[in-house]
This record gives sequence, structure tokens and C-alpha cells, in this order.
Amino acid sequence: VTADSPQPLLADRTPQPDGVPERLATQIRFLMEVDRLKDVLRRSPLLAADRRENDAEHSWHLALLAIVLAEYSDEPIDLGRVLALVAVHDLVEIYAGDTFLYDHDGTTSGQAEREGQAAKKLFALLPPDQSGTFHALWREFEDRLTPEARFAKAMDHLEPLLLNYFGEGGTWQAPGITEGMVLSRKAGIGDASTALWDYVRRLIGRSVDEGWLAP
Amino acid sequence: VTADSPQPLLADRTPQPDGVPERLATQIRFLMEVDRLKDVLRRSPLLAADRRENDAEHSWHLALLAIVLAEYSDEPIDLGRVLALVAVHDLVEIYAGDTFLYDHDGTTSGQAEREGQAAKKLFALLPPDQSGTFHALWREFEDRLTPEARFAKAMDHLEPLLLNYFGEGGTWQAPGITEGMVLSRKAGIGDASTALWDYVRRLIGRSVDEGWLAP
Repeated sequence: VTADSPQPLLADRTPQPDGVPERLATQIRFLMEVDRLKDVLRRSPLLAADRRENDAEHSWHLALLAIVLAEYSDEPIDLGRVLALVAVHDLVEIYAGDTFLYDHDGTTSGQAEREGQAAKKLFALLPPDQSGTFHALWREFEDRLTPEARFAKAMDHLEPLLLNYFGEGGTWQAPGITEGMVLSRKAGIGDASTALWDYVRRLIGRSVDEGWLAP
Repeated sequence: VTADSPQPLLADRTPQPDGVPERLATQIRFLMEVDRLKDVLRRSPLLAADRRENDAEHSWHLALLAIVLAEYSDEPIDLGRVLALVAVHDLVEIYAGDTFLYDHDGTTSGQAEREGQAAKKLFALLPPDQSGTFHALWREFEDRLTPEARFAKAMDHLEPLLLNYFGEGGTWQAPGITEGMVLSRKAGIGDASTALWDYVRRLIGRSVDEGWLAP
């Protein structure tokens, strides 16, 4: 699915019953369309099964990380808002696709524009007030101007890094990835949590020592 | 994996680096163990792909439903707490397995005890204070004594029902399932939201008319 795809909505294959309020029918169409997030594959291999992770289960895992690790935020955070941010943060990838953190080519350079178009298309499925809410949550996450967004983004950086460490390589085994690249791309964790950034540097250091990540 | 399985924790295959605070190392072990939720399969077929749903992506989908549909709660709810409840609600299935809503045999009868054992085992991986927090969230969800738990449970009932409706059958096609059974098992939706229960009854009615669900 691309941003200009004419593909019909998942819910439009089946008419809704008579007598359903228009607003609710609209909301349900959106909620069925986002089922597609379960079919957006990331690069990260799971620990629990021999397959790659999808965006939906990744988003859930961030919620768990946030609940357990909230105490390490350097700033006070509203955990409920962090949970809302992580639930919506990857929705634009339904139409824009996942972008690998270490991609350097045109894929990455067009990412912001592609995701902006995808957000416009996807959130337009909601009633106008909720479209605004979702746009605002997504922008908050991307812009990291609030403590909640910085912490949510730190979880988004931390989860695949943990999968790589405990998977003893994972996406770090892709050609051309080095310790310096990982440290630089993951530095946002330090903007949210000194303790977690210290932990991450230890994970990266041992990974290099063990040969799971190139120096 | 069963409640008394000697299977090692996913994170214990790989030692953590030196110098990591014990509390953080413990929390991370738990957060890696719950990766297993991505490998617990439910009965529901996805709309977006030709496979069954797993518990992790289901839990994420409930968060989206809660954000969009919160306005239909009959009682005021703290959305952030609902999001925490849905994130943790199925964790016990990592060790207890998924129980199909329409199963009537011994599987169901032992469910509560099996899940209690699983909760004890899984949440014991956390530091004691957080073990208490997770136990409390899970019990709150199961007992439905708060408006947030009633609404979270309603989302848990609603999501697979929507997948069945828009999938034009889904798990309703399993032998022996009837309209009456669905109405009775899903009645908890009405305890949280009159509007959503009205909607659900319309979905069920049309499903019977269309032959996706036996009368």
C-alpha cells in the first residue's frame, strides 16, 4: 500500500448494519483499517519466535517498557500520555512503510514527506476532532518537545536494541553497521533518561566485545 | 510453555553486562520474557493478512479502540489507566495459553486457576513493588470493579467481534457457535457502554441475516 494507493479500506468490503450513527461507523472504519499495522514488518527478529517483528506488536512492547521503566525518566512524565503516544507512533507506517534506522539512501531522505502524506491520508478517516487528536499525538512523538514524547521515543529506540542484544546480533549484523552508528542513532535515549543511556552504552560495549556489533 | 515448565527465561541465554544495577537488570529480564506474548496465537483471523492474530498485536489494537471509542463509556474513565490495563491484560497467557471464549470443556473450567498460577510466576520476575502493581492491574481488569476495567474488558470483547464481522464469519464459523452464545458472552460490553452494546447487537443481527453466524 502506498500513499496514493486506490486500495479500498478493509472495512469497506462489508457494509455496516442499518441504523448505526455516522460518527461511530466512521470511527470503526478507521479502527479496522489500522489492522494493517499488524502486517507492517520491521527488521528486528523476535526473541520468542523465529520471525521478524511487526509494528503492532512492537507498539505493544513499547507500552510494557514504558510501564516498567517509567521510574528512569529524568523528568516527571504522565505515563498515560506516554501509552497513548506509543500506541499511535507507528500508524503512519501503514501507508508509508517501515524505515530501517540505518538506511541512508533515498528511502530515508523522503521519509518525513512520505510519513506526512500518510498521516494526512490515514487520520482523515477519523471524524475531524479525532483526526486532530491523532495528528497532534503523532507530531508530539516525532517532535519530542515534551517529556512524554522524549520518553516514548526512548522506548522506541530501546526495544529493538534490547532485541538485538539478547538476540546476540539481530539487525546489527546487517552490512555496514558499526558501534559509532548505533551510539549516534540511539543518543535520544540519553535525552530522556541518564540511567537508561548508561545501560545502553554498556549493552553496546559488550556487544562489540562479543562480536555481535562491528566496532 | 506451561506454568511449571523449567524452560529458561529468554533473557537468561545472554548475560547482561557488568555494572548494571540489579533492579534494572531484573526489570529488563521481565521485559524480554514478555516477548513471548507475540507468540501466543488467538483464534481470530486478521483482516489485513491471512493468518491468526497474536496476543501482543491484539493488546495493541485494544489500545487504539480505547483511544477512539472512550467517548462511548457510560461512566467517566481515566484513559491512561485503560491503556495500562489493556497492555497487561493478556500477559498471563504467556504461561497459561489463550482460552477460546466459546470453549466449554476442562480447558475453561481450569482457566482461572491456571491464569492465577501464571500471574504468580510471571509477575514474580519483577521487583516486588512492580510485581504488586502488575498483579493489581491484572486483577482490576479481571474483576471489572472499576469503570476503567469495565471499559477495557469491553474493548477486549469488541475487537474480535469486529474482526469476525468485517471478516464475514471468522471464529463464529467454528462448530456449535450461535447468536445466543455470542450475545451472552459479549454482554459485558453493555456494562461499559450502552451505545457500543447497541452497535454490537446490530452487528450480530446482520451477521445472522447474512449467514456468518448461526441463529
